[in-house]
This record gives sequence, C-alpha cells and structure tokens, in this order.
Amino acid sequence: MMHIIDLITKKRDGHTLNQEEISFLIHNYTQGKIPDYQMSAFLMATYFNQMTDEEATFLALAMRDSGDSIDLSSIKGIKVDKHSTGGVGDKVTLILGPLLASLGVKFAKMSGRGLGHTGGTIDKLESIPGYQVEIKVEDFIQQVKDIGIAIVGQSGDVAPADKKLYALRDVTATVDVIPLIASSIMSKKLASGADAIVLDVKVGHGAFMKTEEEAVKLAKLMVEIGRLAGKQMTAILTGMDEPLGHKIGNGLEVFEAIETLHGKGPKDLVEVTVEIGAHLLLDAKIESDFKRAKERLNQALKDESAFLKFVELVKAQHGDVSVLYHPESLLSEKVEQVIALSDGYIMDINALDIGKAAMRLGAGRETKEDKVLLDVGVDLHQKIGSKVKKGDVLATLYVRDKGIEEAKELILNAITIGQEHKTLQLIKKTIK
Amino acid sequence: MMHIIDLITKKRDGHTLNQEEISFLIHNYTQGKIPDYQMSAFLMATYFNQMTDEEATFLALAMRDSGDSIDLSSIKGIKVDKHSTGGVGDKVTLILGPLLASLGVKFAKMSGRGLGHTGGTIDKLESIPGYQVEIKVEDFIQQVKDIGIAIVGQSGDVAPADKKLYALRDVTATVDVIPLIASSIMSKKLASGADAIVLDVKVGHGAFMKTEEEAVKLAKLMVEIGRLAGKQMTAILTGMDEPLGHKIGNGLEVFEAIETLHGKGPKDLVEVTVEIGAHLLLDAKIESDFKRAKERLNQALKDESAFLKFVELVKAQHGDVSVLYHPESLLSEKVEQVIALSDGYIMDINALDIGKAAMRLGAGRETKEDKVLLDVGVDLHQKIGSKVKKGDVLATLYVRDKGIEEAKELILNAITIGQEHKTLQLIKKTIK
Repeated sequence: MMHIIDLITKKRDGHTLNQEEISFLIHNYTQGKIPDYQMSAFLMATYFNQMTDEEATFLALAMRDSGDSIDLSSIKGIKVDKHSTGGVGDKVTLILGPLLASLGVKFAKMSGRGLGHTGGTIDKLESIPGYQVEIKVEDFIQQVKDIGIAIVGQSGDVAPADKKLYALRDVTATVDVIPLIASSIMSKKLASGADAIVLDVKVGHGAFMKTEEEAVKLAKLMVEIGRLAGKQMTAILTGMDEPLGHKIGNGLEVFEAIETLHGKGPKDLVEVTVEIGAHLLLDAKIESDFKRAKERLNQALKDESAFLKFVELVKAQHGDVSVLYHPESLLSEKVEQVIALSDGYIMDINALDIGKAAMRLGAGRETKEDKVLLDVGVDLHQKIGSKVKKGDVLATLYVRDKGIEEAKELILNAITIGQEHKTLQLIKKTIK
Repeated sequence: MMHIIDLITKKRDGHTLNQEEISFLIHNYTQGKIPDYQMSAFLMATYFNQMTDEEATFLALAMRDSGDSIDLSSIKGIKVDKHSTGGVGDKVTLILGPLLASLGVKFAKMSGRGLGHTGGTIDKLESIPGYQVEIKVEDFIQQVKDIGIAIVGQSGDVAPADKKLYALRDVTATVDVIPLIASSIMSKKLASGADAIVLDVKVGHGAFMKTEEEAVKLAKLMVEIGRLAGKQMTAILTGMDEPLGHKIGNGLEVFEAIETLHGKGPKDLVEVTVEIGAHLLLDAKIESDFKRAKERLNQALKDESAFLKFVELVKAQHGDVSVLYHPESLLSEKVEQVIALSDGYIMDINALDIGKAAMRLGAGRETKEDKVLLDVGVDLHQKIGSKVKKGDVLATLYVRDKGIEEAKELILNAITIGQEHKTLQLIKKTIK
C-alpha cells in the first residue's frame, strides 16, 4: 500500500519517484483523497529538489489521463499542433493555421482563452461576428477532414488534475518550477491528439521566462516529455522583448493577421510564423528541405492561398466572412494617440506594460469572470530600432470608455527613446 | 497588508522573517485564516532553508502566546523546570522533583502523558492509587508554596498553535526540522513559568535524535531560544543507547524511583538525575559549587529526605501513601521471563524495541485514545557491558494477558550478546 507521506519524504530527500508513484499521487489528488496540504508540501519539496525528465513525463501523462483526450486518428495524415508559452501580440496561430492548411497540412487546433496580459486565440476569433468556437468533437474532426483546418475552444474536461494543481501552485509559491510548468503545458498538448508539435517558448521581459537559460531548460524538458510520450517535437526560443507585430487586442490582432495573410505582415510576425510553419511542413512530410519549406510558406502568403483558406475556416465555423474583406470594422471608431516627447531611436518597448495597457482598455481579463471588449487595443507605430522625432505618433489606441489615461501613461512609460540603435535577434534557438 | 504568499516566498528564497511576520503567520494560522495548504508549503520551505535562532525564538514566543501561560511569580524564589526530549525508562522527574524540593528548590511541574514508546510522567504517577493529576492552578501554586513541589497534568490550553502545527507537520514530512522541534518544545516550556530550565536532550537509537551532531544543534538552539526569552538555560546531552535504569512501565518506574529515592537506584539513573539536579541547585542559588551540589544531592538520596518529600508530594495530591512503603503492589503478579540463549557480554540493548515491548504489554499508547495498563512492563536484569551465561534471566516481564509472546520476541531480538566488553559514556556534553 502506497502512502502519500512516503512520497513527500522521497521527494524531500532527493529521491526519484517512479511512474506508479506519480500516478498514485495525481489520481488520488484529483479524486480528493490526497488533501491540498499534503500536495502543497510535495510541490514545495519539488521546488527544491526538482524532477528528472522521466518524472516530469510521468506527471504530464498522469495529468493528461485525469481527463479527456482527443482522438484524431480518423483524420488521414500527420496532424500538427503549435503552442506558445504566451506573449504580447502573439497572433501566430491565426496566420499559421490557414497557411499550413493551404499547403495540405492537417491543422486541428483547440485553443484557450486569454488571462492576464496575453490574449487568447479564441477571444481573438470571437471578434469575427458569428464565429463559433464551441463545436462538437465529431464536427471538429469532420471539418478538419473537409477543409484541413479547425480552430475551436477546449472541449470536454482536459487535464482536470492540471487545473486543480495549478490553482494550488498559485497560492503556495510553487508556480516557478520548471518541471511543473513543463508537465502542465505538456499534459494539455498530449491530450490534443497531434502527432507533431512545435513549441514557441517566449523569452524576455514580456514573457514568463525572463532569461534564455530558464527558457532553454523549459524548452528542452518539454521536447523531452513530448518525445518520451511518442510525439515529434521541436521547440524554438523567440524574443519577447517587444510585442510581436504592431497590434495588440482581439479585433486588432485579427486585422493584423489578415494583413499578414495578404502578404503584408510585419517582419517579426512573418519571421516567427514562417519559422514554425517550416518545421511543421517538414514534420508533416510535405516538404523535406527547410529552406524550400520557407519559400513555399512565403509564397502562400503572397498568392492569397493562405488568406482564402482563412476565409474557408471562418465560413465553416459560421463567422461573418464579409468582415475579412473589411477588417477596419473590427476596430473601435474612437481613437487616441500617444505622442513621442523626444527625438531618438526606440531602445525598448516593455511588452508587459503594453499588454497591461491593452488590458486596461478592456481587451483582456483580470479575472476569469471578466468580459473582454473585442474592438479595443493598441497599435504600435514603432518597433525597437525605429528612429522617431518629438511629436511623432508612437501608438494609436482604439478605445471605448475605460482605462484611456492609464493606458496612455503605461505606453508612454513602456517606450524608451534614446541614442542607441539596437537590433534584436528574434529567433534565438531551435531545440529538436 | 501582509500576505501569506509573500511569507512563503520569502522563506522559499532563503530570506529571514521578522517577528511581526512570524506573529502574523502563527496568529492567523491558529485562527484558521491561513489554510493548512499554505502553512505546509511554508513548513517544507523551512525544512530546506531552516530558520535563524531569532526566527525560531519568534516562533516559540508566538506559539506560547497563542494560549495560556502559568504565572508562578507569587511563589518566592527561583522556580525550576526540566524537560527530557524523551527516552525509554526515563523516570528522572519522579526522583528529581522530590530530591530538589527536599533541598529547598521550588519545583512546580506540569507534565504530559506518554505517546508511543516513551512513557509520560503523569501516567506513571497515576499508578499510585488516588494520585490526582488534575489540580486547579491556584491549588497547584499553593501546594508549591506549602511543600515546595507539585507535579500535575497540563492545565488550560497551552500553546494551541503548537498542537495544530505539530499535527500538520506529522502528515507532511516536516517533523524532522530542528528549528521547528526546538520552538515546539520551547513554546511549552516558556509557558510553564519557570525561571531556570535544564533540558535533557537524549541521543542514540532509542531517542528522537539519532546522532550527537543533530542533538547538539537542537540543544544549542533550545538554549538560545530560552535565553533570548529571558530564561536561565542549560542543556545536557545524555545517551539513549539502552533504556535508563532497569524498569520500563508505569508502576515499574515508580517502583524504581522509590528504590532510587531510598539511595538504591541504578548507577545510570542516579548519574543523570544528580547531574541535572546539580545544575538546577546552582541555578536556584542554593549552592554555588557544582561538585558540592552533587554531594548534597547524593546525600539527600541516602538520608531518606528525598523519599520523605516524595511521600509528602503524594499525600498532598491525594495518593495512597501506603503503596510507597509496599511498592511491589504496583506490579502485576503474573510474570514471564526472557532467558539468554548464549554466553557473552551484553553488547547492545535496543531501547526503542524495549519500549515497544512494554507498549505491547499495555504500558503505553499507540493512539491518544488508548488506555494504559499501570502494572505491566519490563524489568531488564542486565545492562550493556554485563556478562551473562546461557540460561540466565535477561528480563522479567510483568504482564496481564496481552502482547506476551510479541514482547518476549522483541526483547530477545533487542539484546545483542557477543564477545566485546563495551562501556558507554552516559553524559556526553553540557551546553550552557
């Protein structure tokens, strides 16, 4: 008979738990048979003694098995998925999905809503009137079979153990534990049914991982967990020192995604999207050469085939397709501007504070219960390295009636103008 | 506004908490405003990052202040107390109290009941028919004023925070944390109202502290806590590699205490009692020379003055004094013997297993609700270093009708007979 106190002691003393022990722990915790106060002691011991790759994998598997998994096996071919650890202005999924599908990749995606300063794909898509995010699993699978793509909300009860554990970590100072972060993310990815997964691990002051060292650790561990669970895995480390692209906010990000799908996207956003896409094109065995994969992706952005796939997706999920041809309707008509107070180069744009500014305007949630405004947000006119003059417009704010002054102040303080002309490296590392 | 999550984080990150923070923690935990799951995360962080002497002192004070303290200030002179960290056959208090009182020291003692393999002073005294352990505080104080001694059960609600915290530590693998052990013991000692305290820290395989290194750490910290709280403190480290004296069990220990009070006690028991007594005689300013203090204590054992004080104590607390003159009536009439199976020297007597044997016979409690049998136990005829022949009696068991075969086997296995003639050092260290 296994006892929780022995498992706490084992972790406390730096020993390794086997799969049976970790399953026991998670199963009984989810069932309410192990109380929170014992689990929190285990979590704090894990903070200090960490976990081996195997333990983190067993944890991810046990949490996956605590709830529903999606079975995509009836869809022919290699199914792909991507995951971002969360950054400001990250609308990659909106572009990548149609782009890959236009090249024949099966993109069956369940996405989450946003919390805090990073937006959720599902909230963004809901800014398209009529777009249905709640779809029955059979219909979801049928849609991928029919048009190669579906992007829907989480259905069923995915990894309830992770939800319960995360809530406990949040109040016991055990959030910042890399094996716990990795297994939390991977428990949900492993439930998603994809064969190949690219992880976009954000690093920088606008991301959860502040240093490259931490980000590499997390990326390697997630790749290892996925691989041990039988998935084809790639992780890329990308900078989140400034927001991705120019636009932050639900409708604004769909607007920028549409521009990008027309081949007119901002350089950084295109670069990350094409990089992830190229890995998945290879994983899906549609292309064998990385350089040629990138060329094909860029081509599909330019020749409208990616955009047309997006139109197909929105139509299939009952969205109003007309707005895709008039994306300015996604934005609030009331605008405000933030003006540069001095001359120089943009040296820093604190992504976290830009995200907060968008949230204050109503684009994000502070708590799970908050309703988001779909047409508000921030359009940054400058990126790090741009030259500006006093009086230039730094940002346009699309607003309703809340948080305007607060957002303006946040944005003004978030942007550092100085004399150094910086260039950033966006894609920092690839981990296979 | 203080937040518990910040305090957990502080301890997790190796910082030091101040008095206000520790008071907040303990006060709100006792009130139920901090949930167990946050406290257990704090405790596990403390396991890894330990506490400074000051933090442990603040913790002891906060736990003392969570409940009742005894005010002994109306009793003239210096009040003394002793505490043992718990060992098998430890009946020192039964002898030390009357002994010191016979020399004019004020001995106002609240004692606990036994749990597990170590017996409690209160259970032992209850083997004297009629002895009252529940006495009102006013009567307790009056008795010390009248005859210089009282030994009663815990009255009031002493350190409820410690009780709650200990119960949590017990189920979260955070018992073995020296600052938590030290502040737990000291919270109760500081509530006891004594001016001078001697701590008998047991070390060896029959004790909670298995190594001298740990025992020294614990002893030093408790001395420091007591001193920071204004008490006169001494700790001695004594061996618990074999039981103290010969007899284990409630009535049996009173029997051996009476023998010792008549000047006929076993060497090790007398040595520890006199050592502790000499420190307290100096602390109480009744004697200024340690050697002479020991001589006076030995004399009081030989000339019956200590025994007569014990008679006075038992009388004052309504016990049947006649049994003190016929202590054989404290023992069960049914006996069993354990016989040596080979020739040689006694090389080891596992105190823990001897304690368990007495418990199996009914002398101790496995859970708080168990009733103890007062007339059962173990009388060891041999000590480590004794020479025995095959067929010699190793121990006499005073039994009722339970646990006899189990106890016999435990005792036989606990005693190692071999060719090495060992001698033990009983008093290992004195810490002032």
